[in-house]
Amino acid sequence: MTLGAAHSFAALDALVRPRSVAVIGASDEAARIGGRPIAYMLGQKFQGDLWPVNPRRPTVQGLKSFASVGDLPAAPDVAIVAVPVDLAIQAVDDLGAKGCRAVICFTAGFAEVDEAGEAKQALLTAAARKHGVRLLGPNCLGLFNAGVNFYATFSASFEKGWPIPGRIGIASQSGAYGTHVFAASLDRGLGTNVCITTGNEADVALGEVIGWMAQAPEVDVICAYAEGIRESEKFLGALELARANRKPIVMMKVGRSALGGAAAKSHTASIAGDDTVTQAVLDEFGVVRARTTEEMLDIAYAATKRIYPVRNAMGVLTVSGGAGVLISDAAADAGVEMPPMPEEAQAKLRALIPFCAPRNPVDCTAQVTNELSLIRTFTESVAKDGDYPAILAFWSQVAGGTSTGPKLQPMMQAVRADYPDRLWVMSMLAPQKVKEYEADGWLCFEDPSRAVNAIGAMFRYGAAFARAEQPAPSVPLPKVTLPATTPSEAAAKALLAAAGVPAVPEAACPDAEAAVAAAEKIGYPVVLKILSPDILHKSEIGGVLLDIADAAAVRAGFATLLERAKHHAPTARIEGVLVAKQIKGAVEMALGIVRDPVFGPVAMVGLGGIFIEILKDVCLRRCPFDATEAERMIRSLKGFPLLDGARGRPRADVAALAKSLSALSAFAVAAGPKLASIDVNPMLVLPEGQGCYAADAVIELEGGH
Amino acid sequence: MTLGAAHSFAALDALVRPRSVAVIGASDEAARIGGRPIAYMLGQKFQGDLWPVNPRRPTVQGLKSFASVGDLPAAPDVAIVAVPVDLAIQAVDDLGAKGCRAVICFTAGFAEVDEAGEAKQALLTAAARKHGVRLLGPNCLGLFNAGVNFYATFSASFEKGWPIPGRIGIASQSGAYGTHVFAASLDRGLGTNVCITTGNEADVALGEVIGWMAQAPEVDVICAYAEGIRESEKFLGALELARANRKPIVMMKVGRSALGGAAAKSHTASIAGDDTVTQAVLDEFGVVRARTTEEMLDIAYAATKRIYPVRNAMGVLTVSGGAGVLISDAAADAGVEMPPMPEEAQAKLRALIPFCAPRNPVDCTAQVTNELSLIRTFTESVAKDGDYPAILAFWSQVAGGTSTGPKLQPMMQAVRADYPDRLWVMSMLAPQKVKEYEADGWLCFEDPSRAVNAIGAMFRYGAAFARAEQPAPSVPLPKVTLPATTPSEAAAKALLAAAGVPAVPEAACPDAEAAVAAAEKIGYPVVLKILSPDILHKSEIGGVLLDIADAAAVRAGFATLLERAKHHAPTARIEGVLVAKQIKGAVEMALGIVRDPVFGPVAMVGLGGIFIEILKDVCLRRCPFDATEAERMIRSLKGFPLLDGARGRPRADVAALAKSLSALSAFAVAAGPKLASIDVNPMLVLPEGQGCYAADAVIELEGGH
Repeated sequence: MTLGAAHSFAALDALVRPRSVAVIGASDEAARIGGRPIAYMLGQKFQGDLWPVNPRRPTVQGLKSFASVGDLPAAPDVAIVAVPVDLAIQAVDDLGAKGCRAVICFTAGFAEVDEAGEAKQALLTAAARKHGVRLLGPNCLGLFNAGVNFYATFSASFEKGWPIPGRIGIASQSGAYGTHVFAASLDRGLGTNVCITTGNEADVALGEVIGWMAQAPEVDVICAYAEGIRESEKFLGALELARANRKPIVMMKVGRSALGGAAAKSHTASIAGDDTVTQAVLDEFGVVRARTTEEMLDIAYAATKRIYPVRNAMGVLTVSGGAGVLISDAAADAGVEMPPMPEEAQAKLRALIPFCAPRNPVDCTAQVTNELSLIRTFTESVAKDGDYPAILAFWSQVAGGTSTGPKLQPMMQAVRADYPDRLWVMSMLAPQKVKEYEADGWLCFEDPSRAVNAIGAMFRYGAAFARAEQPAPSVPLPKVTLPATTPSEAAAKALLAAAGVPAVPEAACPDAEAAVAAAEKIGYPVVLKILSPDILHKSEIGGVLLDIADAAAVRAGFATLLERAKHHAPTARIEGVLVAKQIKGAVEMALGIVRDPVFGPVAMVGLGGIFIEILKDVCLRRCPFDATEAERMIRSLKGFPLLDGARGRPRADVAALAKSLSALSAFAVAAGPKLASIDVNPMLVLPEGQGCYAADAVIELEGGH
Repeated sequence: MTLGAAHSFAALDALVRPRSVAVIGASDEAARIGGRPIAYMLGQKFQGDLWPVNPRRPTVQGLKSFASVGDLPAAPDVAIVAVPVDLAIQAVDDLGAKGCRAVICFTAGFAEVDEAGEAKQALLTAAARKHGVRLLGPNCLGLFNAGVNFYATFSASFEKGWPIPGRIGIASQSGAYGTHVFAASLDRGLGTNVCITTGNEADVALGEVIGWMAQAPEVDVICAYAEGIRESEKFLGALELARANRKPIVMMKVGRSALGGAAAKSHTASIAGDDTVTQAVLDEFGVVRARTTEEMLDIAYAATKRIYPVRNAMGVLTVSGGAGVLISDAAADAGVEMPPMPEEAQAKLRALIPFCAPRNPVDCTAQVTNELSLIRTFTESVAKDGDYPAILAFWSQVAGGTSTGPKLQPMMQAVRADYPDRLWVMSMLAPQKVKEYEADGWLCFEDPSRAVNAIGAMFRYGAAFARAEQPAPSVPLPKVTLPATTPSEAAAKALLAAAGVPAVPEAACPDAEAAVAAAEKIGYPVVLKILSPDILHKSEIGGVLLDIADAAAVRAGFATLLERAKHHAPTARIEGVLVAKQIKGAVEMALGIVRDPVFGPVAMVGLGGIFIEILKDVCLRRCPFDATEAERMIRSLKGFPLLDGARGRPRADVAALAKSLSALSAFAVAAGPKLASIDVNPMLVLPEGQGCYAADAVIELEGGH
């Protein structure tokens, strides 16, 4: 798949990097919504044409004003629309007719409000579509592109200050939150070049904005904020392109919790999809999800170095044993590996400071503050002998102390210069020295745990970017013809078996004698199940009998099942009874497919029973995927030890299970949108080499039976 | 229990609040270890007597110097010792003879180094004990008490600045980390009054320092750093006293992870006990554990308000719907409740801003920036109508914008003044305005998630302080006489049953006919188990038979078990077979007791099988405790739904299980130190009203069989 290549995200160039800008509803007052963009662009010296449209004034903020869109000297690349709802719709139509290519619509009162607003938004969108005009908003705070001094926003953020040069891009569904991140980045001295807020997303949605940043030379690092993803194609294409172009995305996707999800749904015009599905998609493309704004900016800051190590290995230097322990704890939390220093190097360091702890964390001890040159020796050893791609130095107050700081800084500058390919990170308490160390190429954090977390994100990007360089595994799709109505269990299993998801040996039997014959052929003990396209959940009506050991029991069981079906589901069509081999000693798994409204078929795997129902111990993944990926999913389960020989069991046939899971994912894609869901539960996994078998399967079609 | 009252933590007054100080190894050079404390105290004008001891100089830093301890004009309250190891031991002896009450020993080279150092430390401790001198260190960075300008430390932290007035105390096992926290608090403008580092803890350990702070008027909030707890009595007393005195403790206990635990063990002279036991102890006393230094200081900062709400309910105001969702997610993470506003209040707010979201989070929308007076109305409504004890306002840039900040601040000041008993917290992006809002009584955070986390900690303190006001539940201890050697299963169960942990009806039978008689009396089906004091884990040798349905099966089973025992454990003493009622339909739990080297007997409860072995889903608690606490433990298990009617089961008899767990905890205490461990597994819990029964029990004694 080359999702990214399928889109030309450069189509948004006119929107983000225009040479001419019209402002519909231009105001002479710099503090008004229709005045702010003009004041900003005049103040910051936007180099293109700036054309206010205001029929009531000859000039606006000193610029010639035009009475109407028709009066503009030419078609603007982009127009800012800041007039009431009905006028906005008309303006988009007029702009399209004039040849304008893109509109940024500030106007509120559309779909975020009520049904009438939704109807108005449909008119606005139709007007844009008619002329092929791209539309940002409505109900958005606009965007800025500091590199070309284009400020198409009425945000008051610039009261804090103008963007600092830098290569961070912000893509946000929320205007208030997007500019909050911008303002917070400003307070931290981070350079944010571009900020685009998408509001109601009538046309341009978050995915396309991320995609534009993924190919734009202005941006190296993408900070994205999402409440819900509305469309998958451009979103997935954008994530793939960003990964291919080695541009890390750090995403705040809110609505993780039940409470947060409810709040997201009550928030204006947003859609909060299934958060676990979104998480699976983000994992797939190596997008790192931030839990807090602070974490987002920590990661963006670290990413500005553009060093994404493929090997997960952090070397730690410390002047405090306690901090070394704390950092080790934080590394475990963040999935950061801390392999030990080579033995010879440890011996070398021990010779220098007898009571140092040179393993990793490398504790130089407070001794080094008396003999500061040792710090350099230790640091060099960690870089050279330890060969860590990322190095965290906990220098705390030593970094800035009046007695130590002036000596330490040139040492750290020199050692970094010798190993410029490493990610050099310092945890230090000396706010006044941060700029100096940063100028030397170091990343500076006060809190060591935050430093570790940011380093962990760089390792995750490194791994994802390396994966992107591998040829994408091809997953062959089977030929699938779904029946017209919901299939019976037997039909469902036959469909799946043909696609590579094997089922337990079984036979559909219309009468008791056929059942006996089948059971004799399969071998006792067998399981009997009622067979009906109208009874989906058999166990609820007592429609499954276990441990059937001989012919008499088969006959008796047949009668029992028919009676129960008649009693509990008198109108159900009964096709007989299914006779199946009873498998013992297997691990019970559950596989499934659900259709996500945005991302399409998503596969699920989990251990059966309580693991799924009580512990929610499942792994999800967008379909299709290969067996390698399927095995990774299975191994990520908390209950995986049960498949891996825990409690004295034999190891289960994980390879066969992975093959079936991959086959199921391919089936789901091949089946197309008519497929609503699949539930393979239990999937019985036998010991290694013996395979796995679906003991039950339900396939549900869109529109019910 | 009144652990805290049993100790007089004021005994450390001489150490922390002395009127006279001697410095053994005093240096004329202000930058040397023996010079720094004198320079600090001279510079900061320590009001008591300051007596340098240095035989080679007539004066030290302008003060008269004394040639020896014997020459001192009087016994100092405290002496700082900064001379080499052997001299330090002698100095402590001399100081004790002179009548000195406390020593702060900077000298390194003791137990943190090697066995010879351990021996030296024993001599040092003995010298102090001989004279009743209290000893801080050795190998410690000392302490400071800014309120009396007592600076008995050689930390270089003061190069950053002197402590700001405030009421935070730092108690740390690590000098480097303790002063790191002090320096970080300084950078954040937090007032830290006292900082005490304990080093090797030859005498004064962390618990006693915390206890001193718990009763000292200098300190309101205690930040503690621990690598391992060495003694439990003073530590527990300190936690109890702090809780009784409503002084929150926020603790960084490192070594959470396997990696961190290993690093802690390699770190000088530290003991890292079982982290999960420590966690249980901290939970018991309402100590909040910080994961990062930043979190520690966030919580300490919030705690300086001394508002600890008993009711967990946060009202949230926001100008960004997105931030409202993010805050709801963070609240779910932090266990913070966000109940909705009353319906009438919601209607009232909706009348003011039609498209606001007034539930909670209360989203005022960006509308309020146009009509700022509405912010005050909304804020008042959240305080008055919502009646939340804690209120978080996400004002972001509005708090400090040049157009909005000057108007917002007096409004927020006024509304807070009307409700001064609430915890008022603002998430804002305006570093230059922080001091002003803080002066008005607001807590200010940039990141909203960090604000939520700190609020959550205040709720936890509120709950813990409220619990402390309840009369401590009395847990009557049973009379326990342990046998001389490890008891058989039957004897173990009889011991436990007598103490209130009921066992499955059963009978020990020396021969097959006795077994048949017992089975007939108990009722079929029964379980047969081999009975031997030498076979602890019966199932491993096939020593348990299930589903024994009649007399013939009892006889056959008896023979089988004896044969298996003979085969697998030929030297074991065989006492016969245990016949027990076979219980079906019960939930299998596991109860246990382990003896922690520091905290003594600790009880464990978990669901049987995979829940314990793979998911580590257990709850621990120091013994003894009552049934209410036991039930809280049981309900905290992730697998609790299995006891609570999940998957169509009947509800299990949780009350009976809690009673047994409490009884087990009392048994463990009554049994005394000879008890090594107890394993009650499975504990079969029947449906509500039907009780629970131990099906197996192993009691292990110290020193083995």
